[in-house]
Amino acid sequence: MEQELIEKFTKIVGVGHAITDQVLIAPYLLEERGLFHGKTPLLLRPSSTAEVSSIMQLASQTRTSIVPQGGNTGLVGGQQPDESGSSVVLSMERLNKVRCLNLEGNFAVVEAGVILQDLQKKADESDRFFPLSLASEGSCQIGGNLSSNAGGTAVLAYGNMRELCLGLEVVLPDGRILDDLRFVKKDNSGYDLKNLFIGAEGTLGVITAAVLKLFPKPKGQAVALVGLCSPAKALKLLSLAQCYGGGMLTGFELMGKLSLQMALDYKMCERSPLEHEHEWYVLIHISSLKGEDEALTVLSIILEESLHEAVIEDAVVAQSLKQQDFFWQLRETISSAQKLAGGSIKHDIAVPLTSIPNFISEAADIVEEISPGARVVCFGHMGDGNLHYNITQPIGADSEVFLQLWSRMNQSIHSLVMHYQGAFSAEHGIGQLKRRELRTFKSPVALEIMQGIKKALDPLGIMNPGKIL
Amino acid sequence: MEQELIEKFTKIVGVGHAITDQVLIAPYLLEERGLFHGKTPLLLRPSSTAEVSSIMQLASQTRTSIVPQGGNTGLVGGQQPDESGSSVVLSMERLNKVRCLNLEGNFAVVEAGVILQDLQKKADESDRFFPLSLASEGSCQIGGNLSSNAGGTAVLAYGNMRELCLGLEVVLPDGRILDDLRFVKKDNSGYDLKNLFIGAEGTLGVITAAVLKLFPKPKGQAVALVGLCSPAKALKLLSLAQCYGGGMLTGFELMGKLSLQMALDYKMCERSPLEHEHEWYVLIHISSLKGEDEALTVLSIILEESLHEAVIEDAVVAQSLKQQDFFWQLRETISSAQKLAGGSIKHDIAVPLTSIPNFISEAADIVEEISPGARVVCFGHMGDGNLHYNITQPIGADSEVFLQLWSRMNQSIHSLVMHYQGAFSAEHGIGQLKRRELRTFKSPVALEIMQGIKKALDPLGIMNPGKIL
Repeated sequence: MEQELIEKFTKIVGVGHAITDQVLIAPYLLEERGLFHGKTPLLLRPSSTAEVSSIMQLASQTRTSIVPQGGNTGLVGGQQPDESGSSVVLSMERLNKVRCLNLEGNFAVVEAGVILQDLQKKADESDRFFPLSLASEGSCQIGGNLSSNAGGTAVLAYGNMRELCLGLEVVLPDGRILDDLRFVKKDNSGYDLKNLFIGAEGTLGVITAAVLKLFPKPKGQAVALVGLCSPAKALKLLSLAQCYGGGMLTGFELMGKLSLQMALDYKMCERSPLEHEHEWYVLIHISSLKGEDEALTVLSIILEESLHEAVIEDAVVAQSLKQQDFFWQLRETISSAQKLAGGSIKHDIAVPLTSIPNFISEAADIVEEISPGARVVCFGHMGDGNLHYNITQPIGADSEVFLQLWSRMNQSIHSLVMHYQGAFSAEHGIGQLKRRELRTFKSPVALEIMQGIKKALDPLGIMNPGKIL
Repeated sequence: MEQELIEKFTKIVGVGHAITDQVLIAPYLLEERGLFHGKTPLLLRPSSTAEVSSIMQLASQTRTSIVPQGGNTGLVGGQQPDESGSSVVLSMERLNKVRCLNLEGNFAVVEAGVILQDLQKKADESDRFFPLSLASEGSCQIGGNLSSNAGGTAVLAYGNMRELCLGLEVVLPDGRILDDLRFVKKDNSGYDLKNLFIGAEGTLGVITAAVLKLFPKPKGQAVALVGLCSPAKALKLLSLAQCYGGGMLTGFELMGKLSLQMALDYKMCERSPLEHEHEWYVLIHISSLKGEDEALTVLSIILEESLHEAVIEDAVVAQSLKQQDFFWQLRETISSAQKLAGGSIKHDIAVPLTSIPNFISEAADIVEEISPGARVVCFGHMGDGNLHYNITQPIGADSEVFLQLWSRMNQSIHSLVMHYQGAFSAEHGIGQLKRRELRTFKSPVALEIMQGIKKALDPLGIMNPGKIL
């Protein structure tokens, strides 16, 4: 990249925020799993929508490609530049203001660079609740959450980021600013642009701000860890939990035996919260707007009924907030714990709820056929039909040899998913990692429409190139 | 239109379903309010997605414009051809199969021409619930509901049509078929095409089928009609109802004094269900998955608390299913009742909940200034911030003279709506009626993006021309 261009970009954000020093840039290029090794000559840290607009104007005039980046926690390489070193990385970290917190109206206007946990805290301090919750909430940013249509553990009751957003502010690839910061739930005035930018992984524009919904803060929580013998039983438990819990059921996470064991080992726990070992576990979370008593009562009814009907084998209710946190930590650390067991091949899939038992059984056969001895670490947001179906290498196997099976394994598991009319990327998106998958499994007509939209909004192809399409 | 072309279209659907007889066509051109007087030489009634595809192929080869039509109940002229007589009307009435009803998975695959009430009944017979509900449910069709992103009375608890749909099948303007009939809630594989076609009013393609969510059937209902003194009090009541009712609050409809009086007159009721007259009324609907007892208990708590805190003046709880229906009929007949009182100028707006009291007060001043003596008939889905803010002519005024104020009134009321960051078309869409409004109030950048999308998907401009853009 020519020095002159770098200087022009620098003028927009100020010397301190246009970074060319590769040591300082390095953390932005670090990709958690080590799958992508992007390069960039320049990192820009704008502090306002106007600056982002100027950057995109200059970028389109000079056909410079731009890679927007939030907290750099995405799992498919969507936030990483490619290896050509010709893209500028646009960090949104300084657009981090909560512009407005409307408590009566239960919404907040939030800039893209606000860290999810900061918004959660801000809502909490105001006796409100922002429900999006995921393992990376301490560092991921709202803009990334929107661009990837983040899901997480509260989707069951509150929906994905798509459902949590009322309106957007977006800078288009040519610098125009779309101000669609609506404060209302219902708006049928023309095409749904909001949902087009949400989940587009920064390939159609840069989300700079959003209107997000806030909710009444639940006043009481109850959490249980349940042991049961099969996914089919877990499905019955879900049905009971929905019947007795209704909207109070805010979490329903499935964990296979190995998932929980890995998490317990990682946490250096000598024993499980449950007395005996079970083939499968479910974490149930009940939230009440009234208080802990109601939450505990509802949870007890669900558990008693499930025991009575032999749906579950055992259950333990968290006795303190600390223990509630611990149960959740077990669930949240599975990914990290899995790393210690060697190479793993991952799937982020969704199938219709009723197909989960068959899927899990048939997928296990596929795994065993492709890599005898490989260990299935299956867990996830069962209430949404969304499983993280991960495969850890056989004990003692060569990690690199195992990882060479990645695309064959993906291909087979995803074929099974598509057989059930499911999704081969339920919540992590496409990025760079699943582009081939998209070409293989998405209908050609859907791809053509996406390409048409991309061309209409980003005719020069400068917006996060090489991602999704 | 040349006879040869008519014959080609006829070949696709069969002689009995290509109609050129203007007497038979007339009902399809009848527009409820008499605002639009479209013409067409040909009405096609295909019976399959393949036929729709062939029709669109021929249409694009011959540059023939096509106007898809559902139950012809839309309120903005979106389903009507223009007066040039050059468009073919495509009635979806024969694509009326429920392709699949998956009770365990709680979803249905439904063709576009299925009548909403038929789907409601089918779900009900299977102990399930399809929540979309609106005044025209006996004749409106699922395809139209999707194309207009229909709202109605259950949005508060279940969302708009957008939220009720998991996936779509769409025939594109050139005849290609997009099969995006997903069965899962979470799918982050590329741009959100589903939400692009939903609410596009048939200008981007023809929706031929959809996967729709079903819900557990509520086992008990409780409905009350409440009298109170102001919209501010209604807002407090909503807050209490949400606090004590949570997800069980499935309806919250505001009605001004005049709205209810007109409905009572229309129903030829001598007296209101409430003993005294009030300035404002609210219909509260509570649904319970457990049974009527729970619904009544929750409703009682809400009403007692509201009386205790002087939020409401009086309330009557429906004593039978028949009376519940009657309360709802009062609400649903306001539009019809209003017709008897002369000309009316309508608005379908949304403002943030907390702005509703100010909006109603300021809008009344605007109405009085533009048309002294005009009567405000304000009612609607207050729980969603969505009001049908209609103005009936002054008593004894000349209806035509009054209706000449339509665009001036719209302009002023919609300006006020936009001041509150609201929506000038909350649920009825744009169609032909609100195109000028769209150009006036939508941001130019949003319009440019919409035009770009339209051009990408329908480069020949044959798909429902003259609507939205």
